[in-house]
Amino acid sequence: MKYGYFSETKKEYVITRPDTPTPWINYISNMDGYCGIISQTAGGFSFYKDPRDRRITKYRYNNIPVDRPGRYIYIKDMEDGDYWSPTWQPVQKKLEGFKCTHGLGYTKIESEYKEIQSKVTYFVPVKGSVEVWHLKLENKSNKSKTLSIIPYSEFTMWCEPESRNIQWSLHLTRGDFKEGFVTYDFIEPHPAFDMKANTNYVADRPGMAFMTIKGADIKDFDCVRDKFIGMYRSETNPVGLENSVLSDSVLQGGNGCAAIRSEVTLQPGESKDLVVLLGFAFNIDEAKQYGEKFSKTSAVKEELEKVKDIWSKYTSAYNVNTPDKNLNIMVNYWNQYQCKTTFDWSRYISFYENGEGRGMGTRDSSQDTFAVCVQLTDRVKARIVEILSTTQFETGDCYHQFFPLGHKGDLKGFSDDHLWLVQMVHTYIAETGQLNFLDEHVKYADSQKVDTVYQHLKAALDYTERQKGPNGLPLILTADWNDTLHLWMECEKPESVLTAQFYVYALKLMAKMAEKTGRMEDTDVFIAKATAMADLINEKCWDGKWYIRGFGSKIIGSNKNDEAKIFLNSQVWAVISGVATPERAKVCMDSVKELLASEEGVKKVWPTFSKYDQAYGLMSRYVKGRKENGIFAHSNSWAIAAEALLGRGDNAFEYYSKITPLYKNDKAEVLATEPYIYCQTICSEDSLNKGMGANSWLTGTASWMFVAVNHYILGIKPELDGLSIKPAIPAGWNGFTYSRLFRGCLYEIEVKRTGQKRIVADGVEVKGNILPVSASQKCKVSIEI
Amino acid sequence: MKYGYFSETKKEYVITRPDTPTPWINYISNMDGYCGIISQTAGGFSFYKDPRDRRITKYRYNNIPVDRPGRYIYIKDMEDGDYWSPTWQPVQKKLEGFKCTHGLGYTKIESEYKEIQSKVTYFVPVKGSVEVWHLKLENKSNKSKTLSIIPYSEFTMWCEPESRNIQWSLHLTRGDFKEGFVTYDFIEPHPAFDMKANTNYVADRPGMAFMTIKGADIKDFDCVRDKFIGMYRSETNPVGLENSVLSDSVLQGGNGCAAIRSEVTLQPGESKDLVVLLGFAFNIDEAKQYGEKFSKTSAVKEELEKVKDIWSKYTSAYNVNTPDKNLNIMVNYWNQYQCKTTFDWSRYISFYENGEGRGMGTRDSSQDTFAVCVQLTDRVKARIVEILSTTQFETGDCYHQFFPLGHKGDLKGFSDDHLWLVQMVHTYIAETGQLNFLDEHVKYADSQKVDTVYQHLKAALDYTERQKGPNGLPLILTADWNDTLHLWMECEKPESVLTAQFYVYALKLMAKMAEKTGRMEDTDVFIAKATAMADLINEKCWDGKWYIRGFGSKIIGSNKNDEAKIFLNSQVWAVISGVATPERAKVCMDSVKELLASEEGVKKVWPTFSKYDQAYGLMSRYVKGRKENGIFAHSNSWAIAAEALLGRGDNAFEYYSKITPLYKNDKAEVLATEPYIYCQTICSEDSLNKGMGANSWLTGTASWMFVAVNHYILGIKPELDGLSIKPAIPAGWNGFTYSRLFRGCLYEIEVKRTGQKRIVADGVEVKGNILPVSASQKCKVSIEI
Repeated sequence: MKYGYFSETKKEYVITRPDTPTPWINYISNMDGYCGIISQTAGGFSFYKDPRDRRITKYRYNNIPVDRPGRYIYIKDMEDGDYWSPTWQPVQKKLEGFKCTHGLGYTKIESEYKEIQSKVTYFVPVKGSVEVWHLKLENKSNKSKTLSIIPYSEFTMWCEPESRNIQWSLHLTRGDFKEGFVTYDFIEPHPAFDMKANTNYVADRPGMAFMTIKGADIKDFDCVRDKFIGMYRSETNPVGLENSVLSDSVLQGGNGCAAIRSEVTLQPGESKDLVVLLGFAFNIDEAKQYGEKFSKTSAVKEELEKVKDIWSKYTSAYNVNTPDKNLNIMVNYWNQYQCKTTFDWSRYISFYENGEGRGMGTRDSSQDTFAVCVQLTDRVKARIVEILSTTQFETGDCYHQFFPLGHKGDLKGFSDDHLWLVQMVHTYIAETGQLNFLDEHVKYADSQKVDTVYQHLKAALDYTERQKGPNGLPLILTADWNDTLHLWMECEKPESVLTAQFYVYALKLMAKMAEKTGRMEDTDVFIAKATAMADLINEKCWDGKWYIRGFGSKIIGSNKNDEAKIFLNSQVWAVISGVATPERAKVCMDSVKELLASEEGVKKVWPTFSKYDQAYGLMSRYVKGRKENGIFAHSNSWAIAAEALLGRGDNAFEYYSKITPLYKNDKAEVLATEPYIYCQTICSEDSLNKGMGANSWLTGTASWMFVAVNHYILGIKPELDGLSIKPAIPAGWNGFTYSRLFRGCLYEIEVKRTGQKRIVADGVEVKGNILPVSASQKCKVSIEI
Repeated sequence: MKYGYFSETKKEYVITRPDTPTPWINYISNMDGYCGIISQTAGGFSFYKDPRDRRITKYRYNNIPVDRPGRYIYIKDMEDGDYWSPTWQPVQKKLEGFKCTHGLGYTKIESEYKEIQSKVTYFVPVKGSVEVWHLKLENKSNKSKTLSIIPYSEFTMWCEPESRNIQWSLHLTRGDFKEGFVTYDFIEPHPAFDMKANTNYVADRPGMAFMTIKGADIKDFDCVRDKFIGMYRSETNPVGLENSVLSDSVLQGGNGCAAIRSEVTLQPGESKDLVVLLGFAFNIDEAKQYGEKFSKTSAVKEELEKVKDIWSKYTSAYNVNTPDKNLNIMVNYWNQYQCKTTFDWSRYISFYENGEGRGMGTRDSSQDTFAVCVQLTDRVKARIVEILSTTQFETGDCYHQFFPLGHKGDLKGFSDDHLWLVQMVHTYIAETGQLNFLDEHVKYADSQKVDTVYQHLKAALDYTERQKGPNGLPLILTADWNDTLHLWMECEKPESVLTAQFYVYALKLMAKMAEKTGRMEDTDVFIAKATAMADLINEKCWDGKWYIRGFGSKIIGSNKNDEAKIFLNSQVWAVISGVATPERAKVCMDSVKELLASEEGVKKVWPTFSKYDQAYGLMSRYVKGRKENGIFAHSNSWAIAAEALLGRGDNAFEYYSKITPLYKNDKAEVLATEPYIYCQTICSEDSLNKGMGANSWLTGTASWMFVAVNHYILGIKPELDGLSIKPAIPAGWNGFTYSRLFRGCLYEIEVKRTGQKRIVADGVEVKGNILPVSASQKCKVSIEI
């Protein structure tokens, strides 16, 4: 079943019915850290800089009814008292011509009810901590209509009291109506009374939430949620809509909301614009400045254009034209868009992550930088510095996550977090050429000691070198990239083949960086260590047709076991890291194809765990076919990269098209999550819910799929010396064109299948497969394969 | 406005309309630790032994719509497809003759819709981990009706994933239909993955939730909540009710529920009984045993009678007959009932405490034993041992709380927790006469060291003796009884007058216990310390017309301050502890009457804080008139006791009638919480919500109000030597009769106002005011005052 399609420009996805299988969302945000999540029917919420510590409006996770509350608008015909929501939710009256358009940075919802046409555009202006709901109404009937317009949002206490202490909302909250604004704040609970011992809690959080409406006079309001909604009612049928006016309720303790009523009269054919502003301000004067700025519709339209311009510029960094339209749409717009979102929020806050426990992941955020280096160069550099200084210890290892508002690390003991630092810095330098970044000074998380970035990375590698187990492989510790593989439950010193492969890869990248900065001795040491580890893996970890996954209380990922004989990750990384010999690389990826690949994507293990086995821990606790016991999309991107490295473009593209939601747009009811965005996990054929996706938006799949497509399938990959060229496209393609920014130059590349191997840049033939860095602003490249 | 009334027997409160101002609830539970909370429209949930670590069904706190989900039943007329809920929620169709009867241990909801009369009785049998929903249907129409009956509950994962990690419910849950039972369990997440670092989490929690229906054949079912409810719908309009059958959905990941459909055909005038069983079992065989046991309606009726018998016996421990009917109802039934509930669950789980963060409070649970020693003698003893061994350190101080399933303590640093141990043990011994309990051996929380109970209590007192501040008073530390009085925010060594008074009182009780057990030297030491501390308080803490509250960055509770000049607690405890001279006792309680007493109850401070003041910390952060910046009901019970000690029965009774909800039954919309139960806090006249209650059920008000009425107003108080007699009744009363069990003897007491002072027990005049312990099973006592 089809729920929507891409617009002509492909920059918008248009949803044509309100009842999508799950809420299909968009992130509207700006660089100042104001962010809103909005669904196709205006469900969702907003926060400023940190979803745990400064959440502005409320959202009930896993609620019944699902996807509430949100950025709601009620329209009431004052003649007959009938009311509806122009975004369908929450009133859910049948609307004509419902259409939700998720664009880059905005969401527009259109509909018609009883000849009143409405269009609501939600977006976050480029600067500040405010969001705009632009409502345009048009009277399509032949009689004059007087309408009450009531925007409504429920506030929350910079956190969700229900999961902490519900006394807070009962006794500490305040809501008022001042100078045209509903305001909401509270008498701040002291962190000592955060009973959940949320040790990273930020003490100093002053300020207030606010809402106002521009374009019509405010008649009345409610600050008290229970006055507006009424007991035993819901947003579907608020008591406030049954009364002729709102109750002007002021809040002193209890649940806060903003409901603000205006009236407009529309003559036949007349249209009118109203603007709702919702946001965070430190004081009423700041809120009033937003009010003034957006009091004219023209200003609102200008701001929206600015947002569109920013995204247009952002996505122009990459442009591909291949015979595959879906791939083009993903590379040119939506994969870039999702990558920006994961860079902003890691795995912290979505409709699947509640923004309470997980902060910004160290491993996650490191990977999230890969795909945004061109557009967000300065922010990536700042993020790298933040990760090094906030999460890395002097010993080289890292906190597993950190919180953006408090800048504090949390959790530790994973064997891979610190190794991602090397990949992250290497990617940043390969993209920007900023080798001197390695000599910049950054502190550690646990001391004021300052080291160069290079030393930070060396400390990371040294940490793994020191943490080896009985077979000489790195200990897996709490877990490796696979959070839930808990080999320690039955084994004192379990080891991880995946971490070993990550280590080899990081050593090689480090060797290159050392070489490029004249640290030749270090280079030799790194190469020697990489070779030794690779040899060890090949000596001890080859199971005959694939690489094992680790040493625990038994050999993990071996044909000798009954279940989970083969793990995807240790095959794909054997190839990516270069550990596998060419022959073994082919054999193990053939095993992947034979045993793990399926219509729904490449499975993580085979055979799927059917029961809990303490030897593996949590991983085996997932129900059959789900999550890490099913298809993990992120690992699929590695399978694509590995196939491309083997030159098997057909396999690479097949994996790509199986895992990319867009290819399933026509049966969206099966995937259930958004067609325009990757999800983290898909139920395998072993599940009752075969093909169903979960955890859309915030997944490493986004940036690794960017890498898989751009660097491996299309094969245009930034290296320290320039752009490496090694396309691995499907046999059916005769070529493609590709443009991308690289170190200030726009490379316009045309790839043609001719059977020759030739690279010509600005008319000059290039030896080898590295395009040197161009000094011009444009470089035309012709590639024959 | 009136929402209900007491039944003839006064053992039931009958609610006559479904839309009470807040959900009015009941606790249905048994001694095995199975407990359900149920509202007047069947909202609520169940848990077994621990609401955090083994919650069975889901409840959404502060939800919209409020009070969902619950123990719901859908009835559908198979002829026209119309459906309704016999408990009003969740379908909310208009019902005839709605009536919810909350009884002791059961809740019965009656209604009629389209000539189908229904009566649902909810209760928890005396043994086991199961609850019963007994549905009786009667066809009052003159035609045959075929009805679908669908009981529905939503399961949860022994905890609430939404506040921890919502991945769990997505990927770890299982629901199935086996041998007539819907079952629900999950592949247990390992505590290492409790990201909220809930350090007291219990690792080992096997078992399953189940539901079945008896009395009609099961036609079909749903284990998947989203299949039964449908997306963008709610319990009000589940898609499952629009289809002719349920979908037989089985759960492997996702949200679990039990919806089980049966069909019954009722001829005109015919009635039928159906029984729904919901509960926890370690395996399907255990569940089937419940099924067999309750397959006959007669067995269900017998079990309900057992529950009623138990409560009849329980409440027969105390029986009073005074001229005041409300007081009689409270003492004879409802105050006893609430006291049992607070003893069971401390401040852990109600509709205001979410059962996630707070466990069983040390201070709270100690006080909660006061009122249940007669009926639950063995459990009180076990609880004392649990508190001493789970919360008290060798140093004498205590954890602030502990968790019942994990038996682990949590939080510390309060200056009063340990002092309550002395009052608790003294009360237990005074009630039971078990002086040798003092010589029993119990371990500490932080070691395996074993000490006598006596030594434990001595360690508690010694701890306070060692923790003194610059004025010689006990340091307040994190806080004293008043959790939110954070004097440490601006002062390095703040001191608490209240803790000093508690200390004096505890020393005196300890002196008596030492004396009775021949530890005369200790007695002298305790008395000397008590006298010294009392003298110090009188020397340093008298402000002219009242006692100050403490020493912080300024003098706390002084006439010199602008706000919070006088605190209630340091007046009432000056009297109760005997610190106040008779003259000062009168003066300070007159100040209470003049400055703190109001129509809504006695305020905690005057003048109310209007703004945050760091000198007091959190307490001053509550909005005006709310919580500890308003009327705290618990402290009111102390004011009653203090007035009674001064012999001012009229004042005592006035305070009692102002704070006891029952007296406000006719304007229940103002109080909003249940009329039959105390709430913790009431908004004062300084609040926008004057007179509104909050936090009903779980409050120290319950047991202290029991003490205030029984021990102080009626004046019959257990002491080590017998029952002390000192009534302080209102001038308008000519007397009362009172019976109570005391050390195995039923004392039948008649108090008459004659102007004489005379006590005659079984015909023998008693010297002094202590009734000696009778060796008989009955003792008739005549008291003249």
